[in-house]
Amino acid sequence: MARNIQSVERAAAMLRLLAGGERRLGLSDIASSTGLAKGTAHGILRTLQQEGFVEQDDASGRYQLGAELLRLGTTYLDVHELRARALVWTDDLARSSGESVHLGVLHQQGVLIVHHVFRPDDSRQVLEIGAMQPLHSTALGKVLSAYDPVAHSEALEAERKPFTDRTVCEPEAFERILDLTRARGYAADVEETWEGVASIAAPIHDRRRMPVGAVGITGAVERLGRDGEVRPELIAAVRDCARAVSRDLGGGRF
Amino acid sequence: MARNIQSVERAAAMLRLLAGGERRLGLSDIASSTGLAKGTAHGILRTLQQEGFVEQDDASGRYQLGAELLRLGTTYLDVHELRARALVWTDDLARSSGESVHLGVLHQQGVLIVHHVFRPDDSRQVLEIGAMQPLHSTALGKVLSAYDPVAHSEALEAERKPFTDRTVCEPEAFERILDLTRARGYAADVEETWEGVASIAAPIHDRRRMPVGAVGITGAVERLGRDGEVRPELIAAVRDCARAVSRDLGGGRF
Repeated sequence: MARNIQSVERAAAMLRLLAGGERRLGLSDIASSTGLAKGTAHGILRTLQQEGFVEQDDASGRYQLGAELLRLGTTYLDVHELRARALVWTDDLARSSGESVHLGVLHQQGVLIVHHVFRPDDSRQVLEIGAMQPLHSTALGKVLSAYDPVAHSEALEAERKPFTDRTVCEPEAFERILDLTRARGYAADVEETWEGVASIAAPIHDRRRMPVGAVGITGAVERLGRDGEVRPELIAAVRDCARAVSRDLGGGRF
Repeated sequence: MARNIQSVERAAAMLRLLAGGERRLGLSDIASSTGLAKGTAHGILRTLQQEGFVEQDDASGRYQLGAELLRLGTTYLDVHELRARALVWTDDLARSSGESVHLGVLHQQGVLIVHHVFRPDDSRQVLEIGAMQPLHSTALGKVLSAYDPVAHSEALEAERKPFTDRTVCEPEAFERILDLTRARGYAADVEETWEGVASIAAPIHDRRRMPVGAVGITGAVERLGRDGEVRPELIAAVRDCARAVSRDLGGGRF
């Protein structure tokens, strides 16, 4: 049985490999990157291909991720209780704030976006569901790090990259931001991840008062900010939304 | 090595099981549905859990699909050349037609939606990327069945369910529709899948003139139809879009 499990681990490692960096890889690259003999790697790849998790380009023979992952990933969203409860409230938040709304949960060493409502104007926007955000610099990530002990450990262990001049990377300064986040009940990111972009987020709790995710708005710093701080009426709107979703999850009134 | 591959197949079967029907299952259900001993099933589930492909509910102990599938599924979209080439053209089609646009590819026995542009109004709409549509009744599915021999076999082998009174299920009648689709260069679905809803789709070809997908619009039959037929100006808009994407894929001019 130990051997069986090992092959599932190897298959998962191959999928992760195809999800990062090059994204289209030949058999030799995959075998050497995963430290497997070519024959072993080929057996697993062929099985993954049969199951639709991997596709092979006819012309080049290179492998890439397969359509079955998209189908299964979408099914993951369908059973996501937090997301289902948040749908209406995040629509309301986008309307009241005039900004785009993101709902995020801890995944590995980052924030996985499980819902995204476009800014309610006619501008072209790219859907970010399934994308990852860093824990240490985004408002969603700071909220998760402040309230979820697992996220806290991940954020401290992760490499905290400086994305802009304003990104806080040192552990002590980062801890002070998390203290402030818990004291205030929300977190802000003013050009700490993307130049010109600010975000505000608040925590969502479930019926056991456990932090299960974060919801926030993201937009131009000129709209979200005033005198270097984020606008209080937007903070109120974000926290209202987080409270409403928490209540729907059975989190109780505050 | 044969054993290794078997465990990957079993892992894939468990993920498919969790993607359909109940979606939250206990160990006993999973073991009996996949025909495995509980110990074997538990070993694979534990590995899938470690890799983030499966999550276990703390309270009930039941398993469901995990967040890593969403992350990988989104990465699949990022490397999808057809989708990348179609983004601008499908936006244009939504604007010119005033209807929602779907881009679909053959996956297993159906159409996998790889891109969805909302109808350009302020109505609440649900994103359908990653969802599946039937081959035999939707415009996208008929186009794929008419032009792609693999899709054709799948459509004939699949159970062709009657969704409405207008769904065509018999093989001979279905073949006649595919002949008509090839003759016209587009397919229509007038209330054959959903009551009150019509759709129009056209094929996309790549540089080797192979059918690689279909693009179409979907909307209220009152807007898309006239006298039981779909409106010619909408057919033209859909076919223009399909030609533009084909050209961007190197498919050559027609």
